[in-house]
Amino acid sequence: MKQFSYPLFKLGIVGGGQLGKMMTQKAKKMGFHVTILDPTPESPAGQVADRQIIGNFHDENKLEELAQNCDVVTYDLENVNTKVLKRLFDKGYKIFPSPYTLEIIQDKYIQKKTLSKNGIPVPEYKEVISCDDLKAFGFPVVQKTRKGGYDGRGVFVLKSEKDIENRLGGETFIEKMVDIEKEISVLVARNIKGEIKTYPVVEMVFDERANICDTVVAPARIEEKFLKAAREIAIETVRVLDGIGVFAMEMFLTKEGKILVNEVAPRPHNSGHHTIETCLTCQFEQHIRAITDLPLGSTKQIVPAVMINLLGEAGYKGKPVIEGLEEILSIPGISFHFYCKKETKPFRKMGHVTVVDKNIEKAIEKADIVKRTVKIKGEEKI
Amino acid sequence: MKQFSYPLFKLGIVGGGQLGKMMTQKAKKMGFHVTILDPTPESPAGQVADRQIIGNFHDENKLEELAQNCDVVTYDLENVNTKVLKRLFDKGYKIFPSPYTLEIIQDKYIQKKTLSKNGIPVPEYKEVISCDDLKAFGFPVVQKTRKGGYDGRGVFVLKSEKDIENRLGGETFIEKMVDIEKEISVLVARNIKGEIKTYPVVEMVFDERANICDTVVAPARIEEKFLKAAREIAIETVRVLDGIGVFAMEMFLTKEGKILVNEVAPRPHNSGHHTIETCLTCQFEQHIRAITDLPLGSTKQIVPAVMINLLGEAGYKGKPVIEGLEEILSIPGISFHFYCKKETKPFRKMGHVTVVDKNIEKAIEKADIVKRTVKIKGEEKI
Repeated sequence: MKQFSYPLFKLGIVGGGQLGKMMTQKAKKMGFHVTILDPTPESPAGQVADRQIIGNFHDENKLEELAQNCDVVTYDLENVNTKVLKRLFDKGYKIFPSPYTLEIIQDKYIQKKTLSKNGIPVPEYKEVISCDDLKAFGFPVVQKTRKGGYDGRGVFVLKSEKDIENRLGGETFIEKMVDIEKEISVLVARNIKGEIKTYPVVEMVFDERANICDTVVAPARIEEKFLKAAREIAIETVRVLDGIGVFAMEMFLTKEGKILVNEVAPRPHNSGHHTIETCLTCQFEQHIRAITDLPLGSTKQIVPAVMINLLGEAGYKGKPVIEGLEEILSIPGISFHFYCKKETKPFRKMGHVTVVDKNIEKAIEKADIVKRTVKIKGEEKI
Repeated sequence: MKQFSYPLFKLGIVGGGQLGKMMTQKAKKMGFHVTILDPTPESPAGQVADRQIIGNFHDENKLEELAQNCDVVTYDLENVNTKVLKRLFDKGYKIFPSPYTLEIIQDKYIQKKTLSKNGIPVPEYKEVISCDDLKAFGFPVVQKTRKGGYDGRGVFVLKSEKDIENRLGGETFIEKMVDIEKEISVLVARNIKGEIKTYPVVEMVFDERANICDTVVAPARIEEKFLKAAREIAIETVRVLDGIGVFAMEMFLTKEGKILVNEVAPRPHNSGHHTIETCLTCQFEQHIRAITDLPLGSTKQIVPAVMINLLGEAGYKGKPVIEGLEEILSIPGISFHFYCKKETKPFRKMGHVTVVDKNIEKAIEKADIVKRTVKIKGEEKI
């Protein structure tokens, strides 16, 4: 029988945002030692970890310092220096998901190519080399930057040919506009041994002002056959990418009844925050289990939920000021998460609220009240 | 509408053990700043808090430093210097539960007198001044130290008159031996406004070797009328004590069908650990809400559970070594908590496991497997 000395594992996380914070809290629950690498002192994750190394995600020395001090390294964001991580990985440091997997995902065009080449259904896409390429699928068409976009940044819809003058610069590709019935997401976990578990499919609803996922309904209210297909595609996708850890597969359910993979995140994801309150094993604990090759836990959801992101209100910056908190805390089934970021800005993810209710329609109603009531403002108007 | 600036509250916790740790994790989830006072560097709570002040629970300067730096102070153990806390409380520092309440609870004889005087049912009891007092209820009889006992320490059963020579020293009292059907516990939360909520009644099962609560079954499998009576007594008890925060009321259900309060803990409690996984608001978040006068959350339990304490194995000390972890993590519905104490010793509370299952008998079976499988040993044999 295998023995574990305390601490069970020394975990290093590149990135100290909310995902790193929630990962850290679960790792500390299980008896890990956690070190964060983040340039901002007292980052959200750094506040709850054993230690924070202050440094940039691209700083070779800091990344090596982190790897040297940890049994296993992971990250809470995609924008990490894969060149350095690959060198460390090749030296034998345990870094999961593998930087080779991360590299594929970082370039959304390569990501798409890898998936489609391996039979994963994706929207039609095409690399943009000249302006003519923008016209290949007609209009409207979606243009995306290959690297570095997130939370709606790096995506542009060209409605007609005259939008070409406003096109995104840099390396981009286009995707055929899909007639979307629903945007859905499936979390998949895969550990080093290859054990795989999927979470129930969820619906994602977007804030149109900032194109940020705003509301998640779990489980998704779609036909059983689509739930099954989405989970199967998610499993196939994580295999194609040789993913270790929790991966979020964002997908489109089209009006024609097709499921297409839109984007892959190689880490716990906003669409899985509800799992903290609703699933037997939450996505953060599952990620940690997967990358340390512990057995995966059950992903069973025991109660429906709606998750709402708390975004910084437009017009404010500086120290966060929360309105409406007392009003919502008395609603049964509310869980309020605040990420402890010291500065708000418009549409920044500042926290989230999970509303659980055995009746999902009631959860949606309560979530609407929360959305109308809680505001994250800032001490400075802009 | 009330506004909260980040951090929502600066919370100070006297005591950095597992209760402080779990409280801290929930406070950090909600956007608090947390400072721990504990003599052991990198205490379990200190590891996950913003800051730890290294100092003794009885050190006046350190307690004052904590109070000065926090909006509200609480504690995770009873053995705190109430003389100092009362002085700070009288100066206007917010300390909850009030040190005056804590003082009553610290002396189990005064606690019992206060409860019985106010109509709360308790076992018959009597102060021990001379040896003759030990004989007042005949034998067997339970002798208890008035102050400082915990986890079975400070309790002695005199089976017959000849045990008198082995009696406990110091200030003690005796309690009539009760014919116990079940030991149960009820958590109650009361905030500053006086809002009160109770949690479902649970059963407590004790490890006979060390007289430490070993297993908790939630909810208790007892008749509805007893559940109702226990919750009513718990509410009355928290009112009598003017308690603010979460209080655990340990009770006896006697074979005659009476409910008697055995002991009160003025804080979150081992019998409520399962609430992290099973209730809409767990005891740790509830405690924080209560002492900061936020609205209390729903205490509804959404899935049955069994909680098992992981005690240090007899015969070991030093750095903890965990056996059987991989074996249990694959059981569906397991949540493994390790407190990050750097040294184990016999019967020390090192962690716990919560097993949830919609069928409580199945949860009990799984808990038995966990109990047989996981062992917390140490690097040194004693």
